[in-house]
Parts: sequence; C-alpha cells; structure tokens
Amino acid sequence: MNSVRFTAETSSDGVVERDFLVGEIPGVLWAPVSGADHAPIVLVGHNGGMHKKAPGLRARALHTAATWGFTVVAIDAPGHGDRPRTDSDEQARTEIREALTAGDSLRFAAASVRFMASVAERAVPEWQATLDALQALPQIGPDAPVGYGGGISMGTAIGVRLTAVEPRITAAIFGGGFPVDEPVIEAARRITVPVQFLLPWDDEHADRSSGLALFDAFASAEKTLHARPGDHRSVRWVGVDDTFLSRHLVRA
Amino acid sequence: MNSVRFTAETSSDGVVERDFLVGEIPGVLWAPVSGADHAPIVLVGHNGGMHKKAPGLRARALHTAATWGFTVVAIDAPGHGDRPRTDSDEQARTEIREALTAGDSLRFAAASVRFMASVAERAVPEWQATLDALQALPQIGPDAPVGYGGGISMGTAIGVRLTAVEPRITAAIFGGGFPVDEPVIEAARRITVPVQFLLPWDDEHADRSSGLALFDAFASAEKTLHARPGDHRSVRWVGVDDTFLSRHLVRA
Repeated sequence: MNSVRFTAETSSDGVVERDFLVGEIPGVLWAPVSGADHAPIVLVGHNGGMHKKAPGLRARALHTAATWGFTVVAIDAPGHGDRPRTDSDEQARTEIREALTAGDSLRFAAASVRFMASVAERAVPEWQATLDALQALPQIGPDAPVGYGGGISMGTAIGVRLTAVEPRITAAIFGGGFPVDEPVIEAARRITVPVQFLLPWDDEHADRSSGLALFDAFASAEKTLHARPGDHRSVRWVGVDDTFLSRHLVRA
Repeated sequence: MNSVRFTAETSSDGVVERDFLVGEIPGVLWAPVSGADHAPIVLVGHNGGMHKKAPGLRARALHTAATWGFTVVAIDAPGHGDRPRTDSDEQARTEIREALTAGDSLRFAAASVRFMASVAERAVPEWQATLDALQALPQIGPDAPVGYGGGISMGTAIGVRLTAVEPRITAAIFGGGFPVDEPVIEAARRITVPVQFLLPWDDEHADRSSGLALFDAFASAEKTLHARPGDHRSVRWVGVDDTFLSRHLVRA
C-alpha cells in the first residue's frame, strides 16, 4: 500500500492546506489548524477539465473545514490537473471541444459520456487507494466517518460509481449537469446512504430529465433534490441545506 | 370593508392563537405573546378536505410564530372547515370520493382540478379581504411584509392564483401534490417574487411531471425546488431551508 507523502503546506484563516502524493496521485487536504483527530473526512470531486484546487471547489473546501471542522480531500482525476494525459484522453478532449464549437449537442453528450466513463473507471481505485493511505495517518485513522462531497458533473460521474462500491462512504452530495448513462444509473441503484442531490435547472449541456432520472435511481430512503435556476457555471446554491454532511457524518 | 372580529383566544408556549371572523370568513392567527408590532405576516393555505387548524398546518404555524416571531394566518377555504358547502361543493366531494374508491385516477384528477378551481376562484378575494382587514389592525398595519406560507396541494392551487394578483405578497412557499391545470401554470408565469417549492417525489395522486412543470413556470429569478421521497401524507421535509421566509420577509 502507498502511504501519504506530504509535499507542501500553507495555512490561512485557521485552515491548513497540505499538498500530498499517494503513489502517483497528487492530492490536497484542508483541515482546521487546530482540528480534532478522527474528524469526518469529505472526499470532493472536481468538474471535467478542472483540477483539485479549482477556485469553486477550494472555496467550498475552506468553508467546510472552517465551519464544520472536517478534513476535506481532493485529488486530480486521471488526465486532469498535474496528471499525465493518455492519447485517448487527448482524443476525447479534442472531440468534446470540437463538438462544443460546432454546437453539436448529441456528439458532445456522447463524447462526454465516454470520457467520463473512462476517467471514472481509473478514478475509483485511485480514490480507494487515497482513502486507504489517509486512514493510515494517526490523525485520521480507520474510524473517521467518510462522506463524498460532490460537485455536480464529473465529480458526480466519479462519485456515484465510487459510492456504489465503497462501504466506507456513509453520506454523499451529488449533482446533475452531465449526460447520465445507464452504468451511472445502475451504480445509483446500489447506493443506499443518505444523498443530497443538486440539479442546475437550466443546464445547457445536460438534459434535465437525465438528472431527475439519476435522483430517482438512488435506493436511499433519505435523499433530497435541490434544484435552482441556472446552468452549471452560473447556478448559485442559496437555500440549500448546509448541514447535510454534519447531520450524517457527526456521531451523536 | 369588513373588519377583524376576534372571537376566542388561547395561548401556550409563548404563542397566542386567536380565532377571528372577517365577515363570514372564519380565520385564526398565531403570534408570539410578546411579539413585535408590524412583524411579517404569513398566509397559510390548508389542503383539500382539511381546515384552518389541521394538525400539520397548526404545528408549522406554531413553529413559525415561535421561531421567527411572525404572525401566521389561516382561513377556512370555501366549503371547508366551518364554512357551508354549496350543492356544487357536495357534488364535487362525492365525485372525488367515488373516483378514489374506484381507483380511477383520471376521473380523480379531473374532479380535483374542477373542485380546486372552484374553491380557488372564491378563496382569492376572501384572502384579499382578510388581508385588508388584518392590515387595518394597529399591531399589523399596512407595512408588515406579507408572505404566502404554502402547503402543498390545494394550499398551492389557491396560493399561486392569489400571489399572481396580489402585489402585497413578496415571497411564497408552494408545492406539488395536486393535478396542475393550465390556469395554474398561467398564474405561475405571472409570479416574480422568490419562491420555495416543495415536491413530494412519490405522490400517488399527482403526476410528478406536472409538479416539475409548475416549478418551471414561475417567472421568479429566485426559486428553489426541494424534492423528497414520499407521497403528500408521508413526506418529511428534512433538510429544507427553514430560513426562506425570514430571508425574504425580514427587512435588513
């Protein structure tokens, strides 16, 4: 098993940001400077084309660490951020870009589905290896509750597949904003932990009904859909329950 | 103009419950015993077949008065609670009951749509007369912000029509759980105030897509859909933003 190797550390406003490597996987964790040991961990997935420190993701991570005292973890998905791209990754990116430029939404959806499936297939074991390594750290340990902190779009395409096979994850935030294919629906049907689901109501790249079908598929007794006007860049998540993870990850 | 005539008063846990009449319309208001003058007013609609003090409605009203200090008001809809029923009301109730017993969902939906339209047509001017009378009370006055506090089903069938024509209402909670017809969609298109929308995901009496179409129709820039598993009797609104009315009715 690979262990966590920390490579850099900064802190501001009471939150420490620590870059790390687990084998070849570059990651980052945010935690309160004076945080408690064995605090809940929240795994956060970034969007397609983005990386582990994308501004929106980082802002939410800092908020979660500062507000709830959780340890928030992000890793670069395969072919993203500091990761090398395979020839197939390069081809997929070119095809997605060309379809977008041509305004060909069917081709865009088909290419996105294929690329996200390829990324997710590689990302799931990487998240599991990262979680193994994190749990070997004394300040985290095997008993820290684990949640998946979502992100819409690719973060959910990966997270749904991960949560379906990873019993350590006991609550998850997912979202729409991407073309949902049958394997994602199948994975969602195996998920029984509490789910909070965010749906941009006017996404220009994803059919609204596919997001609704994904929410419908979760086998979870405890699930809540929140939809807001906007596409997946402009949507603002005002009025959405900020206590979801703390309600489900903090032990009484 | 009819004025408010108070007919009974009780209080418990710091909230006073005052029955009143405005002309022939029986109503009730809940307010903190030591409440501030000119606090926001929340108008609350009850479900079909229920009345102004239905247990769920009353529990939410007591919570809203105690937590936010608001004045919560409910009135019996035409043909409900202490109100007389017209022959046409009796016929509609019989038809709805027979369709339910027969498991004839199309006939149930058609009869419900007709009955709710008939009730709402009479209820809208009654709510406006009630609001006129309440604003004439010195402790409320013309400047107290006014919200519509919803209730799914008939409370929304009435509330959407009321909010579309009543500029004094500046924020509204609506919901699904009833067969939505074109006049309700048309009314929703005229609504621009902030809307919180509650959708029971598994309603046995209302098509899910009609609830989604109603949410889609609101012209409000600020609107949020919350969906939860359950039908309109069993749904629990856990994780839904409890601060919605206070965010929009309390002046900075």
